[in-house]
Amino acid sequence: MTVISPQHADPQALRRLIRSGAHQGPTAGLGGDALQGNLVILPAAEAADFLRYCQQNPRPCPLLAVGAPGDPTLPTLGRDIDIRRDIPRYRVWRDGVLVAEPSDIADLWRDDMVSFLIGCSFSFEDALIAAGIPVRHSAARRNVPMYRTSIMTRPAGPFGGPLVVSLRAMPAADAIEAVRICAGFPLAHGAPVHLGDPSLIGIADLDAPDYGDPPVIEPGDLPVFWACGVTPQAAIEAARPALALTHAPGHMLVTDIPAARAERILTGPGQAL
Amino acid sequence: MTVISPQHADPQALRRLIRSGAHQGPTAGLGGDALQGNLVILPAAEAADFLRYCQQNPRPCPLLAVGAPGDPTLPTLGRDIDIRRDIPRYRVWRDGVLVAEPSDIADLWRDDMVSFLIGCSFSFEDALIAAGIPVRHSAARRNVPMYRTSIMTRPAGPFGGPLVVSLRAMPAADAIEAVRICAGFPLAHGAPVHLGDPSLIGIADLDAPDYGDPPVIEPGDLPVFWACGVTPQAAIEAARPALALTHAPGHMLVTDIPAARAERILTGPGQAL
Repeated sequence: MTVISPQHADPQALRRLIRSGAHQGPTAGLGGDALQGNLVILPAAEAADFLRYCQQNPRPCPLLAVGAPGDPTLPTLGRDIDIRRDIPRYRVWRDGVLVAEPSDIADLWRDDMVSFLIGCSFSFEDALIAAGIPVRHSAARRNVPMYRTSIMTRPAGPFGGPLVVSLRAMPAADAIEAVRICAGFPLAHGAPVHLGDPSLIGIADLDAPDYGDPPVIEPGDLPVFWACGVTPQAAIEAARPALALTHAPGHMLVTDIPAARAERILTGPGQAL
Repeated sequence: MTVISPQHADPQALRRLIRSGAHQGPTAGLGGDALQGNLVILPAAEAADFLRYCQQNPRPCPLLAVGAPGDPTLPTLGRDIDIRRDIPRYRVWRDGVLVAEPSDIADLWRDDMVSFLIGCSFSFEDALIAAGIPVRHSAARRNVPMYRTSIMTRPAGPFGGPLVVSLRAMPAADAIEAVRICAGFPLAHGAPVHLGDPSLIGIADLDAPDYGDPPVIEPGDLPVFWACGVTPQAAIEAARPALALTHAPGHMLVTDIPAARAERILTGPGQAL
């Protein structure tokens, strides 16, 4: 287990630790209340289609920022970010197949690389916990269960494929409150996309997730499903670009933006940081 | 069936028709987009406890207005309202038992009578239909199904008893959107109180409602339950006051307030009408 030091709670200090190689683990619970993001990096040739894919599928792929081609900084998300080095662990995909999980991708960076930062569920999970709503996988120290569904995303060029959802099971009254809370976090996947019978969205067996750990479900719980940030990785597997770089699951970019104010800061008028 | 004339679409003209005895039927679909309200009238001796009951149970009993003792007008809800005559059909309760359904209660009015106007579901049903969400009982021209639950309201003096809920069945994605929409109508019972398994709130058989008609449920529908304005009538049955007057189901007070703006008008600062 990571011992959380003051350096782990401050986003900029945490990124410096990560850049130095001193922290290569997951980022859940680190960076104080800072917004965290999923990463996809694609060459410019594929980036235009992928940007359109995200724009058309904002529930699984809410865009926090898109980097300029060849520019590894992300000035709207934080001071002095180097997206090639500031994530603890990356994934390298060649022709849609995962081939490596390095802690640095500086050697793979090119002048035409475009970074996509996509919102993640940590923001709304914190808000749910603050509202007294159980987040059972987190309490059990498991990864969230995720499933491919029969819901197809809107394709853009070669990118497409199934919507991937995450599951959080909870009493029905909490599910109602969770809809209200999460609707206020459109950059963190927003309100759930399905409630109740999993078979209606093509999930045969809740105990056999396609990603993550099996769910923790208490008697009387209602299954609640959110659009999931793993969806773009499924789209990369479908599109088979010659090269794609992503974060490794759970190893996110920690930004300088307070998660609770992300919508206001990133979607308000004008420059914020 | 009522033929809707221009007089039926204008709230003030409709109330004049009702006061004259020319309209004694239900008010669903009448009064244009005007807010409609459930009525409870109690002598001052019981009124204080009932006011506390409503305040403690805002989901089933959202208060639109409380009349001054002995005053049959309701100036915050509409021009020249006479609550003794402006509802098409009333119910008279003695010792908690329904004894009559007159079209006028002027002869039963006393100087200590207090009127309570309580929000109803028509407001949010219109908003659901406008959002393309099916309201199946309405489309089938049935009354909404209502059920006594195992959820107990917060008691105040003699008033208490079970929460009564209304059921609307719909696809899960519509249920999620309905939560978001209805949360914006706190004066019309707000967000649902339960989703999914009816047995978790003490409902044994959806096809045997305690009030209203059996439900219309399509394959794949999720049952969605809202706190219901029949709850105060159950509380009157429990409290058994010597005299209570209410509207007859479906025969509501039609106010001058546009339903979509009711929250802003009635809960904003200062006088609105």
